[in-house]
Amino acid sequence: MAEPSLARLSALFFGFLLLLATYSWVPVLHSGFLSGTGVRKTLGPDPKPRVDHSSAKPHHPLDPLTVREIERVRTILLGHDPRFGSGSATIHSMALDEPDKTRVVQWKKGNRLPSRRAEVLALSGGQSHVIVVDLDSGRVLSDVVNPTSGYPILTMDDLTVASQVALQSIEFNRSVEARGVKLSDLVALPTFTGWYGPEEEGRRILKVQCFTSQDTPNYFMRPIEGLYATVDMDKLEVIKIVDKGPVSIPKAAGTEYRYSVLNKPVHMDRINPISIEQPDGPSFQVENGHLVKWANWVFHVKADHRSGMIISQATVRDSETGEPRSVMYKGFPSELFVPYMDPEELWYYKTYLDAGEIGLGPAAMPLVPFNDCPRNAYYIDGVFALPNGKSIVQPNMICLFERYAGDVSWRHSEILIPNADIRESRPKVTLVARMATSVGNYDYTFDWEFQTDGLIRVTVAASGMLMVKGTPYQNVDDLGDKENDSGPLISENVIGVVHDHFITFHLDMDVDGPTNNSLVKVHLEKQRVPNGKSPRKSYLKVKKYVAKTEKDAQIKLSLYDPYEFHIVNPNRKSRLGNPAGYRIIPGGNAASLLDHDDPPQTRAAFSNNQIWVTRYNRSEQFAGGVLVYQSHGDDTLQVWSDRDRSIENKDIVLWYTLGFHHIPCQEDYPVMPTVAASFELKPANFFESNPVIGVAPFLEKDLPVCTPFASS
Amino acid sequence: MAEPSLARLSALFFGFLLLLATYSWVPVLHSGFLSGTGVRKTLGPDPKPRVDHSSAKPHHPLDPLTVREIERVRTILLGHDPRFGSGSATIHSMALDEPDKTRVVQWKKGNRLPSRRAEVLALSGGQSHVIVVDLDSGRVLSDVVNPTSGYPILTMDDLTVASQVALQSIEFNRSVEARGVKLSDLVALPTFTGWYGPEEEGRRILKVQCFTSQDTPNYFMRPIEGLYATVDMDKLEVIKIVDKGPVSIPKAAGTEYRYSVLNKPVHMDRINPISIEQPDGPSFQVENGHLVKWANWVFHVKADHRSGMIISQATVRDSETGEPRSVMYKGFPSELFVPYMDPEELWYYKTYLDAGEIGLGPAAMPLVPFNDCPRNAYYIDGVFALPNGKSIVQPNMICLFERYAGDVSWRHSEILIPNADIRESRPKVTLVARMATSVGNYDYTFDWEFQTDGLIRVTVAASGMLMVKGTPYQNVDDLGDKENDSGPLISENVIGVVHDHFITFHLDMDVDGPTNNSLVKVHLEKQRVPNGKSPRKSYLKVKKYVAKTEKDAQIKLSLYDPYEFHIVNPNRKSRLGNPAGYRIIPGGNAASLLDHDDPPQTRAAFSNNQIWVTRYNRSEQFAGGVLVYQSHGDDTLQVWSDRDRSIENKDIVLWYTLGFHHIPCQEDYPVMPTVAASFELKPANFFESNPVIGVAPFLEKDLPVCTPFASS
Repeated sequence: MAEPSLARLSALFFGFLLLLATYSWVPVLHSGFLSGTGVRKTLGPDPKPRVDHSSAKPHHPLDPLTVREIERVRTILLGHDPRFGSGSATIHSMALDEPDKTRVVQWKKGNRLPSRRAEVLALSGGQSHVIVVDLDSGRVLSDVVNPTSGYPILTMDDLTVASQVALQSIEFNRSVEARGVKLSDLVALPTFTGWYGPEEEGRRILKVQCFTSQDTPNYFMRPIEGLYATVDMDKLEVIKIVDKGPVSIPKAAGTEYRYSVLNKPVHMDRINPISIEQPDGPSFQVENGHLVKWANWVFHVKADHRSGMIISQATVRDSETGEPRSVMYKGFPSELFVPYMDPEELWYYKTYLDAGEIGLGPAAMPLVPFNDCPRNAYYIDGVFALPNGKSIVQPNMICLFERYAGDVSWRHSEILIPNADIRESRPKVTLVARMATSVGNYDYTFDWEFQTDGLIRVTVAASGMLMVKGTPYQNVDDLGDKENDSGPLISENVIGVVHDHFITFHLDMDVDGPTNNSLVKVHLEKQRVPNGKSPRKSYLKVKKYVAKTEKDAQIKLSLYDPYEFHIVNPNRKSRLGNPAGYRIIPGGNAASLLDHDDPPQTRAAFSNNQIWVTRYNRSEQFAGGVLVYQSHGDDTLQVWSDRDRSIENKDIVLWYTLGFHHIPCQEDYPVMPTVAASFELKPANFFESNPVIGVAPFLEKDLPVCTPFASS
Repeated sequence: MAEPSLARLSALFFGFLLLLATYSWVPVLHSGFLSGTGVRKTLGPDPKPRVDHSSAKPHHPLDPLTVREIERVRTILLGHDPRFGSGSATIHSMALDEPDKTRVVQWKKGNRLPSRRAEVLALSGGQSHVIVVDLDSGRVLSDVVNPTSGYPILTMDDLTVASQVALQSIEFNRSVEARGVKLSDLVALPTFTGWYGPEEEGRRILKVQCFTSQDTPNYFMRPIEGLYATVDMDKLEVIKIVDKGPVSIPKAAGTEYRYSVLNKPVHMDRINPISIEQPDGPSFQVENGHLVKWANWVFHVKADHRSGMIISQATVRDSETGEPRSVMYKGFPSELFVPYMDPEELWYYKTYLDAGEIGLGPAAMPLVPFNDCPRNAYYIDGVFALPNGKSIVQPNMICLFERYAGDVSWRHSEILIPNADIRESRPKVTLVARMATSVGNYDYTFDWEFQTDGLIRVTVAASGMLMVKGTPYQNVDDLGDKENDSGPLISENVIGVVHDHFITFHLDMDVDGPTNNSLVKVHLEKQRVPNGKSPRKSYLKVKKYVAKTEKDAQIKLSLYDPYEFHIVNPNRKSRLGNPAGYRIIPGGNAASLLDHDDPPQTRAAFSNNQIWVTRYNRSEQFAGGVLVYQSHGDDTLQVWSDRDRSIENKDIVLWYTLGFHHIPCQEDYPVMPTVAASFELKPANFFESNPVIGVAPFLEKDLPVCTPFASS
């Protein structure tokens, strides 16, 4: 009886199945669970990688580890700690340990690469290890054990094991079957447990919750409420089963969303085929797989296990002089925080830190051509290390495309000048780098959009499935006073539990160089005009404050106390004497309202402010810490910032948290329409004047000639 | 010597030159000022209207007045008040006086139109008149004199006259010439004076400020600072000249922006031609010029003198039942407020209310094809009345187009189900209705974007020229402490004066019917968990409050006190018992910080809150009042709302103010890159489930086949 569920188990986890979904030379499976009849075969349309990764070499100091490099790190680790060979030590993440910034900045094409190093987060003998490996010398440079609280990012094995352990529990199986659920329909999903005090200390635990996939691929909408098992990952045993008794399982009807299966008439007139078309092909080049050159921008892009996608060394050409000018050294989503708002026993722990707990990279499935990205898109693969140190390629994980949405870059109509009508307008064409990750139920799409006027827009779009709660109620009227207990009723027996999303970006701004930036807070202060001085009684005056230390830069936004926030280089002045700057324009604002002494908020203390600026420190990349799983909050952005280091005229890092409160509604069922929010990095006295004033308009003769497919 | 300046004068004003810019059957010019040598000829690429407006008839109760109807109103008015014939009474605006909502809602295609009426704002004998004319009976139904403070919207004649009066002043001319400016280069621009207390009462005044157009079409960047003349528009005399002495006039170099003239190398790689392509043509129909049908949406769109563009009767088809369901009866930008932040004598009065002071319609020049709107756009003309009652057609004032930007409507990747990869993603295609208006220096683009999932996004994009101030300083270092006096130095001798933009939208939501809507404030309240009840210490709980009266709906947004705001129909419940609702999702938030007793803020009291809900009242359309020019603030949204009428389960109107603080920077010179902000109206338990779950993905075979123009 355990067989089918074991086999099913083997197919449960996003990280895990990444293995199968993708690449023909996938290494020998590292886990025994995959044998048997239930092994899933790749039937989908997933693409093959575009390049032969087996022989790929790095070309740029920031290029991610190649397949060969990953294999080499594995060999070095096997020599370092024999437990890696036996399988009792596991690699939880492996990424390029980037060279020092000064080395990278000085590096020029043609130079030898700085020595290649890897940083490995591993678990060996129940201890967390942060290991730095030098690939050139073949040596382990450092192996730090338990530098902070917390465990490394989870692996696919962790998830598999947790489910298996739970399903080996007769009591757990009995609880499932008592609800009339066949084990062959069971989806036993391990979820991250957070951290709630000393009693959870000293052991890695996962909580396994249950869904049924009977008659639907959308098991997320069919929770088996009132039951979970806590699994000790070291002892491989169930240490607690919570069974509050059966709750009605929501129906399967209405949960299907696959186009090939769904036969749902849509009352909507046909929309004629429409497309962004660029018959001459894209205008950008991707040099050696990672260095993107487009219009006046150059940047490095790569896939990343933890943050999904990293943009580095974004450099814009000065429109007047042609000089390449540094804007941002590195930008990426550093951590996410998704707390659910239900304190009861079966839900309180759901307070996810997705980047550090599971990683955005492994869950970034291949993008769907023509739908996730337009036809003119170019795709980039990701290369990752598996728990056993072997490598895996995730094809089409990132797309790059030029975007034209009918928007206007600048315009002016003028008719005040005799004998010369003026109707000037310029279309806005941008370049987008996109990655979409399905962290379990939720799908997050990350866009970095580059404008020719120097603006960078970062957009996070959320779609996918809600994490819902089973309820006995089928109608709001049945609920009485309980309506708002943890969220609204969004289908029969389904509550959409209220939750927040916070996405904190690491934005290592290097405006015109790495070492000399400052944060200027540009305050709009209301002034009262002295009586009789003017018919006006009040106005706003700009006052500028340069932040001296990190505590000056712990910033909560306020509608009624408005500031602009500029990262400037006080050593680089415009011809008028204004310091070259970039401004962060907040968007998608929500504040975390949880108490600071609440464990989830302590661990996610990076969401205590919307904006922070810290002194650059190469070890301070991940806002929730290096080791996030079951972390106590001793290695967060709040902790670093509270050191209150000087940040004036220094190498500094800007952090911005984009947030959504999410109160679900019926339209979010069974899949949510995309919700998007953006923030912007915008030049402010960086250029001497509007840098796109000389750009040409579109003329009809330059546009493509298109015919319907049918008539081609 | 007066000749050239008179001739030049005639070409000074946007409203005025509208006359010349457009249509061959433009009526006999109503003003003598246009004779002479300087009359501007239409050389530009402005299009001809697509339809023969001379014989057009209304087909829908909300269709704007036709050319014939405008002529008929003129005839009726000539009979009503002989001063209209003599030119001593002038028509300041004329628009359809829309039939009662119940009549419009009940009207079906094929029915006779409700009686056609026009509302005319006029000035006769120095008094403001609000006149309602019945076209069917040929009668004036009402003629209300001075219903509130304020004068009607300005006309092109007003602007012309003000300049002329100023230039007839020897003292004024002397001041100009003392600055070394040739009168032939002078641009004497009348600006709105605001209202600053009793001494300005009882007379219409305009203030004339000066620029030089020497060597540039961009005279806005060449202010002649320190000088203005106040003109009494009744007595046609200069009542005050302020001359603070010459200030350096900023240079012409660097101000040009016309592509045909500018020869500015741009350090940027070529971007290959790119376009939104739809070779089968658009999927929408425009019935009788105004009724748009697309996908699951039907709405009425029309050009409007005051608000530029009005969307009416937006109705979405229920995706499950096919039932057409009312969402919004009427939506439009009701008023703008643009206060400049400089209290000194030459600037304090610049606190514009553009919609009510000059109107967005006459300044909405023809859109530039391929640049203001993509190639797949369809254009709609505007028809307006001139001061003498004759009509004028503004071609291509509105465009409609389907937008595809590479964005995703919804997605989910799932690999947890054996033997079935799931990679579902749907492209987002929307329909945009766009109008762009050049209110003097600023260009505002208004987009109403309709999504198939029921969401309406309203975007305001600002571009054009800053209103700048001359200064003796050429470098920030010269300024010393004065740097922040009224704004930053953005070019030599040019200060970009700090200012705000507030755009207040009238959103007459009729969710599933006109009479039974309520505002529900959905509050996220922080709860502290009692000790020991849960390992969690805090969470957010949803509490709903139904606003009883208008004062419950005077809403200031707060990041740390979050609400959702739903307009619901409590009488229309989903199958789960949730009331059908639409949510307003704020965006582009800025609060006006001016004191409430400051005259500009009193006049623009609609910007005191970001959200308001009022009881529907057909006379309460314009948030700053019907008569806005020199208004005292006695007819604003604040005044109406303070009546505190009941708004529960009633016909209610939602008001939303989108705002920007604008601290200029060098990139804003000489033309600003577009800055955009949006708010959204989003279904919330309006549909039973995600309404676009059944929509088809894009398949390559459906996309167009395109070739470069050169190879076609």
